Amino acid sequence: MSALHTLTAVAAAKQLAQRTLSAETYALACIERISDREPVVQAFASFNADRVLAQARKLDAGAIRGPLHGLAVGVKDIFDTFDLPTEYGSAVYEGHQPAADAAVVALTRHLGGIVIGKTVTTEFATFPPGKTRNPRNPSHTPGGSSSGSAAGVADGMFPLAFGTQTAGSVIRPAAYCGVTGYKPSFGLLPRGGVKTGSDTLDTVGLFSRCIEDAAYFIAALTRRPDLLLKPWMGAAPRIGICKGHQWSRVQPEMAAALESAAARLSKAGAVVREITLPARFEGMAAAQATIMSYEGGANRADDVLRNGDRMDPRLAEQCRKGLAVPGEDYAAAQKLAQECRTLLPDAFGDCDIWLAAAAPGEAPEGLSYTGDPIMNGVWTLLYTPCITVNVGTGPKGLPVGLQVVGRFADDARMLSAADWVAHKLADL
Amino acid sequence: MSALHTLTAVAAAKQLAQRTLSAETYALACIERISDREPVVQAFASFNADRVLAQARKLDAGAIRGPLHGLAVGVKDIFDTFDLPTEYGSAVYEGHQPAADAAVVALTRHLGGIVIGKTVTTEFATFPPGKTRNPRNPSHTPGGSSSGSAAGVADGMFPLAFGTQTAGSVIRPAAYCGVTGYKPSFGLLPRGGVKTGSDTLDTVGLFSRCIEDAAYFIAALTRRPDLLLKPWMGAAPRIGICKGHQWSRVQPEMAAALESAAARLSKAGAVVREITLPARFEGMAAAQATIMSYEGGANRADDVLRNGDRMDPRLAEQCRKGLAVPGEDYAAAQKLAQECRTLLPDAFGDCDIWLAAAAPGEAPEGLSYTGDPIMNGVWTLLYTPCITVNVGTGPKGLPVGLQVVGRFADDARMLSAADWVAHKLADL
Repeated sequence: MSALHTLTAVAAAKQLAQRTLSAETYALACIERISDREPVVQAFASFNADRVLAQARKLDAGAIRGPLHGLAVGVKDIFDTFDLPTEYGSAVYEGHQPAADAAVVALTRHLGGIVIGKTVTTEFATFPPGKTRNPRNPSHTPGGSSSGSAAGVADGMFPLAFGTQTAGSVIRPAAYCGVTGYKPSFGLLPRGGVKTGSDTLDTVGLFSRCIEDAAYFIAALTRRPDLLLKPWMGAAPRIGICKGHQWSRVQPEMAAALESAAARLSKAGAVVREITLPARFEGMAAAQATIMSYEGGANRADDVLRNGDRMDPRLAEQCRKGLAVPGEDYAAAQKLAQECRTLLPDAFGDCDIWLAAAAPGEAPEGLSYTGDPIMNGVWTLLYTPCITVNVGTGPKGLPVGLQVVGRFADDARMLSAADWVAHKLADL
Repeated sequence: MSALHTLTAVAAAKQLAQRTLSAETYALACIERISDREPVVQAFASFNADRVLAQARKLDAGAIRGPLHGLAVGVKDIFDTFDLPTEYGSAVYEGHQPAADAAVVALTRHLGGIVIGKTVTTEFATFPPGKTRNPRNPSHTPGGSSSGSAAGVADGMFPLAFGTQTAGSVIRPAAYCGVTGYKPSFGLLPRGGVKTGSDTLDTVGLFSRCIEDAAYFIAALTRRPDLLLKPWMGAAPRIGICKGHQWSRVQPEMAAALESAAARLSKAGAVVREITLPARFEGMAAAQATIMSYEGGANRADDVLRNGDRMDPRLAEQCRKGLAVPGEDYAAAQKLAQECRTLLPDAFGDCDIWLAAAAPGEAPEGLSYTGDPIMNGVWTLLYTPCITVNVGTGPKGLPVGLQVVGRFADDARMLSAADWVAHKLADL
């Protein structure tokens, strides 16, 4: 088997743009890896090798299309695609074929990217799991809801993938599978053609093998060259260690990982200090849950009211509950969220970034539960950019991940600082 | 012909809930009005009387479903409906049948409302006009993009309707047709199943015959009884007259209307003062245009890149331009918008509401141009609640409308104050 499928996106893109590597050859390497591993990993909701090769040959026959020319991109099955079924992980949409591509899918193709296939999502990107297994250990969950995107990147099937995060659906599976998961600042990537769960929370995110690839991908999609990875310059970053109000929920391996990282980064020259979030933030986890429930009830009203019997019964029940959340509770949650977003810059103070747990610990055993998003929901509601940094393994030998958190709309600095952090933690 | 179709939504809802009026009788009255007037007004993109009557009979046969029981609701054809084609005003989607209802459509049905039909939208809720005429004078535009919803309510076809506003697509057509158009605070109504133009700007709005109906409708949809219309209590409202940085674009009838309204409201006891927007707001119209272009390019990328030849050529060109807007320009526009949203509460000072132009003037003559959203885009980007108040007619005998603007998330107060304003202007 060729090793082409293990290239980073940046390395592959360079060869593809120089035509020292053809899109077809590269696609074949990915297809070979997928054929080999899919029976175990089960990353795909739909995959059509002929269609992939047709896209690749068309690219080889024409001009270089853009910075994603020839790159294979996994697309979570919550994004519409005009040429592949899109079932949103739900029996309600069995065989559903959208008329058009989601915005980021169309942009990807426009820039030369190849849709390698649709990746498994939990039902409606909520909690009922799909079939995907953790490639590091197939008896463990890959996390969710972006299960197939995280697992496929982790397993070398494709270098880049799309996910979405409403609670913890990008950062958590990335940490569980040991890849880079990047939740950009809210609104940085467009959501057209993504099945809506929550207007307030749904955030399009990216999976990749390294931070440089994530930066390359978002810079291309947004036409923001300032988001390309720049090495951290000057004095070492000022880093806040933010345990947050949910710290009691972490497992020992995560507590140890954050403590150890703080010590090592301090030793590497970073100014490291512990953050105490303002008291108002204490209600943010509950606010996130209220908003997700209320908006999920509304946006899935048609699904549950007409087709609830084809949904996971617990999800159907959750949707019905969402349709009964009092409007005033929702309004109060939104008000608190807005207030905390406004308080956040002051709380950041002179920190460049914060470091936090990406998940409670390693990926749980079994496939019936994709793990707890408790360490993620508050950041999603705060709209901050977040990116995973993998820092070792836990008691079961599975990856343990932290997340670097930046200020809102400060993604470029966060990416640079996270890359500094990742390298220092790998070196020491 | 029965006069049932002229009832306000609140009056009809009461009779329907008490079963002194059957849903079928009421639906027949609306259908009769539609049959009579549709050849002139052309409000509908799709209409199926049998389906309307089936919905009504089902309601009559069961329990009272909720506060919208039996009410006829027009749905702009940018919202998905599972049982009626949804073409988004575009030949690209000719005959398109979505799999599910948009969130607010499903909520409407859940609460007992009847989808009376799909109303005409401009192409993708942008500028290329549909077939709808202004019911006040069919040789004039009804405005857009929510053309059919505004015209249908104005003409007595249905008492309530949904629209969307990305620039000026609710407030402007409401003013042109002489009905109530209500753009709630951004995020108050969910957007799932609405064809995305701009994540940052798209706002679901409502049309009705009066402010009380708009308040009744949104209170039902959001489960927010605090949004039901309450009469303004205590001292008369403090009103800011906000001409804004686009004032040079208004026609004489609008300048006269705002001046006259200010004088009459002052005479009625309101504290009225002229507002000068902070200097930073000067760039907001350009920022709104940049955001709409960049996001519109992304969200319609698939439409224009695969099917651009089936779009209005000027719109296709605009979408292609959107795909070339530099990402840094977009980021700068978002930053300014965020800054001005933060400055707005201070700018409001002690005002309860502001009063502004809803459009440059009367509805333009002809059907090839739906009018200029220049008096609306800044408010859309500021996320403030806005509602039209009709204040008379212009030189061609067509309605002239102002808009009442509230603070973000202060919809209840804005509705009460707007109702006070509407009554005082009607009385004097």
